[in-house]
Amino acid sequence: MAAPDVKALVFDVFGTVVDWRTCVITRAKEISGVRGVGIDWGVFADEWRTEGYLVPIGEIVGGTRPHTDVEVLLGEKLAELLIRHGLELTADETHSLALTWRRLDPWPDAVAGLERLRRGYMLGPLSNGSFALLTEMAKRAGLPWDCIVSTELFGTYKPDRRAYEGAARLLGLAPDAVMLVAAHVGDLRAAAAAGLRTGYVPRPLEWGPAGRQPAPPDPDFDVVATDFSSLADQLCSADAGV
Amino acid sequence: MAAPDVKALVFDVFGTVVDWRTCVITRAKEISGVRGVGIDWGVFADEWRTEGYLVPIGEIVGGTRPHTDVEVLLGEKLAELLIRHGLELTADETHSLALTWRRLDPWPDAVAGLERLRRGYMLGPLSNGSFALLTEMAKRAGLPWDCIVSTELFGTYKPDRRAYEGAARLLGLAPDAVMLVAAHVGDLRAAAAAGLRTGYVPRPLEWGPAGRQPAPPDPDFDVVATDFSSLADQLCSADAGV
Repeated sequence: MAAPDVKALVFDVFGTVVDWRTCVITRAKEISGVRGVGIDWGVFADEWRTEGYLVPIGEIVGGTRPHTDVEVLLGEKLAELLIRHGLELTADETHSLALTWRRLDPWPDAVAGLERLRRGYMLGPLSNGSFALLTEMAKRAGLPWDCIVSTELFGTYKPDRRAYEGAARLLGLAPDAVMLVAAHVGDLRAAAAAGLRTGYVPRPLEWGPAGRQPAPPDPDFDVVATDFSSLADQLCSADAGV
Repeated sequence: MAAPDVKALVFDVFGTVVDWRTCVITRAKEISGVRGVGIDWGVFADEWRTEGYLVPIGEIVGGTRPHTDVEVLLGEKLAELLIRHGLELTADETHSLALTWRRLDPWPDAVAGLERLRRGYMLGPLSNGSFALLTEMAKRAGLPWDCIVSTELFGTYKPDRRAYEGAARLLGLAPDAVMLVAAHVGDLRAAAAAGLRTGYVPRPLEWGPAGRQPAPPDPDFDVVATDFSSLADQLCSADAGV
């Protein structure tokens, strides 16, 4: 699919651009060393992501929990998980582990794909990560964003409709001139409901080799791609020289 | 001066990073062609900058004018200036000329200096230009920002104190971990009053070769540099390998 009217691509980040699970597991093992032997770090990572991020953000968007900074949510859950898994870390180690979410590595195809896409489109994240988190992550990982768009700028979280509308407004574009690229169908459906275009890049390894698998694409998603290289093939093919 | 505690540099843009006056003159001449012969484009550019930007923004920050998008201010003044100078442009030409503010060229030292500074600091604009304007400008001009910070994000304009405080908060930093780099002493004084560090880079050519000259530096500015190369020499010298 060529997308001649799309001017900007905004990306979900956790799971779509970066491989949070592998990075959390690796970093937790590094920090805990022998103290962490016997802990199932895959379970730990999945619990942190689910209970410290997905669930509370769902509650905030649903109106049953007050708005709270995402790193506060993750930090509170980390303290709880350390007790649950019987791991004692120093305050410095705990802080360092919490910062992992700012220091996640991209999927192997991500940076090269973004570099290609950047020649034809305005690129930015559209993530529930904070502005500071996303900025630090991009600098460390070499993500070639043109700007940082965090839902923090709109005082809400995805999938609140205002997050998608706010992104388009901030970029000075009509909603249908903006495409959300995400590995999650719920995010894409909410973006489509707000008038954005949709690019689905399922990431079968997001929850690990034996983890839950991505949903099949909705028939009305505008683009479906296996990775960012394929996404660039589809979105840039119409533009000579891109 | 080494600035070991400064983590982020935020830059005034119009006049500090980009040479608005030369670009406006050049673009206006290109668009108007023979119709513009006889117009003093330097006067035109200075009026546009002063009456369409500096004065109304001062009124907005002073509370005597309602908040208005900066490109609306510039567009309204352009229509007025075309009449004042007796120039007839088509709607497309007028629109194209108005877009000049998104397409300004950097001072010759700017990009190379920013590339050096970026290795040691988080970099972003802190400008009264809109988020979309600053993003488009950066992409076209190759300004290597880590993020875009527009005063639009805080619903105000510099020199409102909330603009400087908002920038530090958004970056997740204490105000004194952020340095404003600007060619204008008023901007720097307001930043210092909000707790930020200050880097003064006067630009003697901002208002043209015969134009108004920069004020002498206040004695309490943290850094004074002749250009971004000198700024990088001073700010990066303490960091090995930067």
